[in-house]
Amino acid sequence: MPTFPDKTSKFIDWYLEVLDAAELTDKRYPVKGMNVWTPYGFQARRQLDAVMIREIEKTRSVPVEFPTLIPQTEFQKEKEHIKGFDAQVYWVTKGGATDLDVPLVLRPTSETAMYPVFALWIRSHKDLPLNVYQIVNTFRYETKTTRPFLRVREIHFFEEHTCQVDEAAATARVGSNLSAFGAMAEAFVLPFVAIRRPEWDKFPGAFYSIALDIPVGGARTLQIGSIHHYRENFSGPYGIHYEAPDGSSKLVHQTTFGLSERLVGAVVSVHGDAKGVVFPSSLAPYQIVVVPILSGDGAAGVADYAARLAERLLARGLRVHVDDSEERPGAKYYRWETHGVPVRLEIGRREAAQGTVTVADRLGEKRSVGPENLDDAIVGALADYDRRLREKAHAAFASSFSVAHRLDELKDSTTVRLLAWCGTEACGHRVEEAIDGALLGTPEGPLPIDPGAPGGCIGCGAANSRWALAGQPL
Amino acid sequence: MPTFPDKTSKFIDWYLEVLDAAELTDKRYPVKGMNVWTPYGFQARRQLDAVMIREIEKTRSVPVEFPTLIPQTEFQKEKEHIKGFDAQVYWVTKGGATDLDVPLVLRPTSETAMYPVFALWIRSHKDLPLNVYQIVNTFRYETKTTRPFLRVREIHFFEEHTCQVDEAAATARVGSNLSAFGAMAEAFVLPFVAIRRPEWDKFPGAFYSIALDIPVGGARTLQIGSIHHYRENFSGPYGIHYEAPDGSSKLVHQTTFGLSERLVGAVVSVHGDAKGVVFPSSLAPYQIVVVPILSGDGAAGVADYAARLAERLLARGLRVHVDDSEERPGAKYYRWETHGVPVRLEIGRREAAQGTVTVADRLGEKRSVGPENLDDAIVGALADYDRRLREKAHAAFASSFSVAHRLDELKDSTTVRLLAWCGTEACGHRVEEAIDGALLGTPEGPLPIDPGAPGGCIGCGAANSRWALAGQPL
Repeated sequence: MPTFPDKTSKFIDWYLEVLDAAELTDKRYPVKGMNVWTPYGFQARRQLDAVMIREIEKTRSVPVEFPTLIPQTEFQKEKEHIKGFDAQVYWVTKGGATDLDVPLVLRPTSETAMYPVFALWIRSHKDLPLNVYQIVNTFRYETKTTRPFLRVREIHFFEEHTCQVDEAAATARVGSNLSAFGAMAEAFVLPFVAIRRPEWDKFPGAFYSIALDIPVGGARTLQIGSIHHYRENFSGPYGIHYEAPDGSSKLVHQTTFGLSERLVGAVVSVHGDAKGVVFPSSLAPYQIVVVPILSGDGAAGVADYAARLAERLLARGLRVHVDDSEERPGAKYYRWETHGVPVRLEIGRREAAQGTVTVADRLGEKRSVGPENLDDAIVGALADYDRRLREKAHAAFASSFSVAHRLDELKDSTTVRLLAWCGTEACGHRVEEAIDGALLGTPEGPLPIDPGAPGGCIGCGAANSRWALAGQPL
Repeated sequence: MPTFPDKTSKFIDWYLEVLDAAELTDKRYPVKGMNVWTPYGFQARRQLDAVMIREIEKTRSVPVEFPTLIPQTEFQKEKEHIKGFDAQVYWVTKGGATDLDVPLVLRPTSETAMYPVFALWIRSHKDLPLNVYQIVNTFRYETKTTRPFLRVREIHFFEEHTCQVDEAAATARVGSNLSAFGAMAEAFVLPFVAIRRPEWDKFPGAFYSIALDIPVGGARTLQIGSIHHYRENFSGPYGIHYEAPDGSSKLVHQTTFGLSERLVGAVVSVHGDAKGVVFPSSLAPYQIVVVPILSGDGAAGVADYAARLAERLLARGLRVHVDDSEERPGAKYYRWETHGVPVRLEIGRREAAQGTVTVADRLGEKRSVGPENLDDAIVGALADYDRRLREKAHAAFASSFSVAHRLDELKDSTTVRLLAWCGTEACGHRVEEAIDGALLGTPEGPLPIDPGAPGGCIGCGAANSRWALAGQPL
């Protein structure tokens, strides 16, 4: 069997080879950074979307879809925003053989598509809050090296946009988004830290930005989502007013919440191992693969037993695949391990005769279950797998952070670093130079580890510093 | 209450006003022909997609997603195809401030995006059939007047693409698609006729095209989908070969099956009436609206009774909305009729006290049900509504066709016409001129009405003619 590059020392090589082997994407499409969602990858995405939809709709957000193309005139209304995106948007300039009067931008994000229409939808305080989301593709003309799921030019994107009566209500929506993301991250088994980005790294046009970051080995971090408070920064230029109960006209306060296919890359990065992808059952295209061993006598009985078992598990709502292809069992085991299937059921003549099953899970546990309560035992094995995957991920998460007290400790960091920071841009940049990466910002809510009270700023020694995080964003 | 224009004599005016009143789309987006899927419209689309996914996956088709942008070089490989689309594609020519080396087309359909990759995926006869579908947006630079759902510039699109071992297998797939569409049309309550288009009207690059057409009043027809047999017309230029069991290299035969948001427009057009939209329960964003009448004493008891009833119906998997807004009951009734909700439950003090409900459906039936088997009675009322909607639609369908024997009968046709046609383009064009519309083609399968055996060609009198249909496509 082929082996993959070492995940720790050659992370990107490992990542790319594992994705290919697991058939999660096809990057041979003739535009660099625009990849094909293969049948297997699409199934993972479908589960991803289902979790996002379930959790956001619990918070009374409703789906909409706005057009892909945005007129240049609308795109340029908020000045910081356009500065932030101008260099990386695709322009549609022709329809047929005709030059368009107004060039159209392929949306890099949908503020400038939605907000002119929000200004028409919102009249009165009774129209608020407006909480809408869409799952669409966005486009960025990336000039950096592209990586499937992590940095692509066409992005499968989730974006919530809300309008609130005032700043406090918008702040409360940010909190509600953080809770919703907590539930999603729990489903994806992705321990994360919510970090308020420094001023110089916030979203173009935002009042403030909270990034959702995960550690992915060494000092490397991956931003898997973000939540922004816009205050009135967009509602002003786009004229999104409402009539308050006292008859006065007010601007709405806005928030956004963005996630993307990067979550698929994050799951691969966090859980994957030397054998390939490892899916939590929430995202797995197949949660269970049934491998009937069909050689020699009794093959018909084995096939029949396997098919009936699979049908019962399907009826329980599980995603089950019976691999009755002509490959050898060993090749099938290897294949489905590479593909990250949580649980494999091996069924030979003995199992069929005894009404049992050999359960092998993707974390290496193997046991025989049945004949009593066979189906329950299989479902239990899947739950047990998820529990151990979660424990493993949380242990890895906790060991991904360490405290640094001096700038010279930051060089060659082997974890993401916690450090005391006075909050100034000057000290922030000192940290960034020392770690050869980024001052990620100050955590919202609990710290990932408990380092006690912060001392003086790591840059200038000033008291009244706060804990901040620094690392090397992928 | 405002009234809508007359549906028969002012169809387009009626259509546009009904869509606005029902809040199914917002066409005030600042690019003409690119409309916003509103919260209500998006829910109808979600049901549409769910039915399409359910039926196509029953035929062993699997979802994928290919990029939105297609390089000019790939787009131009099949000559008929590019000729058919060249005038109506959007071109991306710039990324940031940089002119792209190879301009990119916003997909008008995905043959030219998928087939270079199919050539990589398919190696052996064991890789066949390849049946994949995607639900994505496509783009056409329409120069005709745009109409929401019917003719737009960004189109919510379903497209299946398949590769088969030979022409017969591809023909069988066409048949399987026809059956799958039959099931979808049954769910949407859209009686249709499958028509093999004449040579001069087939899809650019196809061997033949079968259109799925519905009558929408007078001689007007609406093409709501299409199924194409490509033979080797694309697999040749794109090099999609496979190794046959005998070791020889063969080209695959391909088919496609396309549907779109036009189905939403079709449902509005076919079922809508003087009061607005009429949804079959399969597509209705809300299948049931509960209107508690909350004036005077006992309002709390009424609200509580309504809420508990709604919860029980939701638990049965129904889409239920409780309208407890401050509007008057009459305004609510009007609103939800306009929006096409199949069943309205009116609940006042008497109903709450007796454990009954007044059921009013969108076809005008009103009755009191309960207290025995209340929930079953409501579910039964919804099923009864769908049954009557179906009967009504089939009766209207049957009366939408009539036979024409002479060209001069075609002028001012008040139905779609059946006529005998020799199959030549010359006589086809004579028909088109006479009806001021199109020779739609020859029906696949049963005729919509039974006109007996065809006589001589309506154009030239030739014997051996076949029944064809002519009308005025919207």
